[in-house]
Amino acid sequence: MSEAPPLAVALAGLGTVGAGLVDVLQRQGDLIAARAGRRIEIRAVSARNRSRNRGIDIGSYQWWDDAAAMARDAEVDAVVELIGGSNGTALAVVEGALARRRPVVTANKALLAHHGAELASRAETAGVTLGFEAAVAGGIPIIKALREGLAGNAVSRVYGILNGTCNYILTAMRESGRPFAEVLEEAQRLGYAEADPSVDVDGIDAAHKLAILASVAFGTRVDFGAIHIEGIRNVSPLDIRYAQELGYRIKLLGIARLTELGLEQRVHPCMVPVNSPIAHVEGVFNAVVAEGDAVGSSFYQGRGAGSGPTASAVVADLIDLARGHRVATFGRPAAALVKAPHASIDRHLGPYFVRLSVYDRAGVVADISAALRDERVSIEALLQRGRNPGEAVPIVITTHATEEAAMMRALKTISRLDCVTEPPCLIRIIEGI
Amino acid sequence: MSEAPPLAVALAGLGTVGAGLVDVLQRQGDLIAARAGRRIEIRAVSARNRSRNRGIDIGSYQWWDDAAAMARDAEVDAVVELIGGSNGTALAVVEGALARRRPVVTANKALLAHHGAELASRAETAGVTLGFEAAVAGGIPIIKALREGLAGNAVSRVYGILNGTCNYILTAMRESGRPFAEVLEEAQRLGYAEADPSVDVDGIDAAHKLAILASVAFGTRVDFGAIHIEGIRNVSPLDIRYAQELGYRIKLLGIARLTELGLEQRVHPCMVPVNSPIAHVEGVFNAVVAEGDAVGSSFYQGRGAGSGPTASAVVADLIDLARGHRVATFGRPAAALVKAPHASIDRHLGPYFVRLSVYDRAGVVADISAALRDERVSIEALLQRGRNPGEAVPIVITTHATEEAAMMRALKTISRLDCVTEPPCLIRIIEGI
Repeated sequence: MSEAPPLAVALAGLGTVGAGLVDVLQRQGDLIAARAGRRIEIRAVSARNRSRNRGIDIGSYQWWDDAAAMARDAEVDAVVELIGGSNGTALAVVEGALARRRPVVTANKALLAHHGAELASRAETAGVTLGFEAAVAGGIPIIKALREGLAGNAVSRVYGILNGTCNYILTAMRESGRPFAEVLEEAQRLGYAEADPSVDVDGIDAAHKLAILASVAFGTRVDFGAIHIEGIRNVSPLDIRYAQELGYRIKLLGIARLTELGLEQRVHPCMVPVNSPIAHVEGVFNAVVAEGDAVGSSFYQGRGAGSGPTASAVVADLIDLARGHRVATFGRPAAALVKAPHASIDRHLGPYFVRLSVYDRAGVVADISAALRDERVSIEALLQRGRNPGEAVPIVITTHATEEAAMMRALKTISRLDCVTEPPCLIRIIEGI
Repeated sequence: MSEAPPLAVALAGLGTVGAGLVDVLQRQGDLIAARAGRRIEIRAVSARNRSRNRGIDIGSYQWWDDAAAMARDAEVDAVVELIGGSNGTALAVVEGALARRRPVVTANKALLAHHGAELASRAETAGVTLGFEAAVAGGIPIIKALREGLAGNAVSRVYGILNGTCNYILTAMRESGRPFAEVLEEAQRLGYAEADPSVDVDGIDAAHKLAILASVAFGTRVDFGAIHIEGIRNVSPLDIRYAQELGYRIKLLGIARLTELGLEQRVHPCMVPVNSPIAHVEGVFNAVVAEGDAVGSSFYQGRGAGSGPTASAVVADLIDLARGHRVATFGRPAAALVKAPHASIDRHLGPYFVRLSVYDRAGVVADISAALRDERVSIEALLQRGRNPGEAVPIVITTHATEEAAMMRALKTISRLDCVTEPPCLIRIIEGI
């Protein structure tokens, strides 16, 4: 088998991940050849700047200024897209390669979240593979797990910690007691958060990945627009302290679930039971849990980003290509992907944690309780610790399972009460995980 | 693609797992066909007793009294072996199928631990797949992860909780404070342990799985005989209490590691830091951690046994067959599998926990310390709690990194001291996980 011709690859994008891929393929060439049955060799590369020092030797590769032209015209067997972004050059590279019936491997979650169903069709028409293991949690082969390892299961729910930056910030907030802004600044200094952190901390990046996971898990068309997205900016040290006291940890989860109403997809801070496996995923790690009818709960944890883990996932896709494996992009033929009805977050049913800031005076609890009662929200616990007459104090409420819409109406009423000094903070409690 | 002919399967063995497989294939036939591109259909079955009520309908399948004959002669595309046992009928079934160039899927860890390298050669000669995802931690697609998902990595260590019975017992001992024998009896009553529990509690089953994992991770020939194996019979509630106090949990781990001396393979109770992910794997769950040079630490948790998870893994292998995937049995050609030098446990270097039972009298600590000093074992902590002059009391010692052989010599000396009333209990401490 080692006599087979090498798999020749064109690589678009030489940022951290691109350089990491070059490094892995150069360093582990023999090992990879032994496993894949043939060598995997980069032949052509393209990036914005040819001469930048990346700590790798690209001298023996054909250089292309135009990545899209390379994807179409370089003499290779496969194209790797590591440029990023949901449109522009990245899209041109992938479309160009597929148009020429070339298999593509990409780490681009935004691209797949926005154009996944369309690109899957194109790959299928071309009869080639579109690999994207690296797009979701590089350190966890979760796409392969869902598409192959758990393929005998009807999956009912898939959820996870899909953004390392947010998990790092929430972990540091809990460990240090410091507020979001301060920890974010530190994360930026350490390189765990971008200068513009909004794609991470506002939940967009996690939502990109959730959209992809949901498609693979449920055989539905990628539907990024249907995801309810909240980030972690409003999580306060007070919430984290209360969570701990109540036996929870706060994690930003992406959750996709098949309900009677359709496909529910949401990204938001969650209180998870402290004894659940996902509560112990700390720092920059990612984790994904898939629940299948035969397998039960299957849990995966690894690094989500960084050059090594992402390159590892890209190489796995390339080895699949070299071995001749072919799986439909989202695990079944593109035409068979279902446009799932959208289960609105308004119909979500579950317990809630609510933190209010109120003036400490008589009747406050009665007013709040009445607003909840009027929407049939059943209180599980109400904590008002410490007195401070005439000043603002926190009140924390946890509820029994409640419909989101009713909860929101109650909060609207509550936020209009004279005694309430700040917009309420709501965090959904996730149980049974 | 759905027009492709079905994959016809012969199934040898209709115990819990066999019945579970029939159930999954019958219940999820359409889903599996959508994913695999063709139907997967059982055509022939064999078991010891035809008429036993298994809660499934096998009336439409061809019945064979002789499983080996079925494996050779039934008109099918693949053979599934779910009989179990490292020899006898199971081996005859697998060998018979391979001799006829039929792909085989098996859940049989004992078979692979003892005959893995030989069977891999036969499969390769026959040009067919030998799938065994179900042999190790059915609820975790770890064989696929190692052989494909992490195939771009040089793996340095793979370890895990590989036996659900032991993990259930250790978890229950910790939660209840009860001794091994009592908890074992309960586990037997609940069906978590066999009437003859020795294959589980003596570490054999975990070692079978470790032998397989090591081969896939390191490209070495399966070498069950080289594994150092200890079970959990000697773990006492006292050890569990001390572990907790010292910041550890006790888990039965299988560990395989490439060292300068060769391949180290061992199964024994370990103290793992309470903040490591593996410390939180409780009850009947299994977990595996793979450490790769690119990916870092990649962690997997799921149910290890039971009909659903095991059937899920068998179906995944069948779907791979239906899709035409082919990977060498242990991830690379059989002839390329290396006979790794055996790194003896004697040369293992690490910290130790030792519990002694001694008569509470003057000079005891001095005698023990001297024995350790003579072997250059460096004490990290020594605890002698509670006085009970003239009676037996526990002394607990933790050491800095020590070579196993030196530790064993010191313990031999110590166990001969007059003041020592019972054989010492030694548990290795695992750090950096």
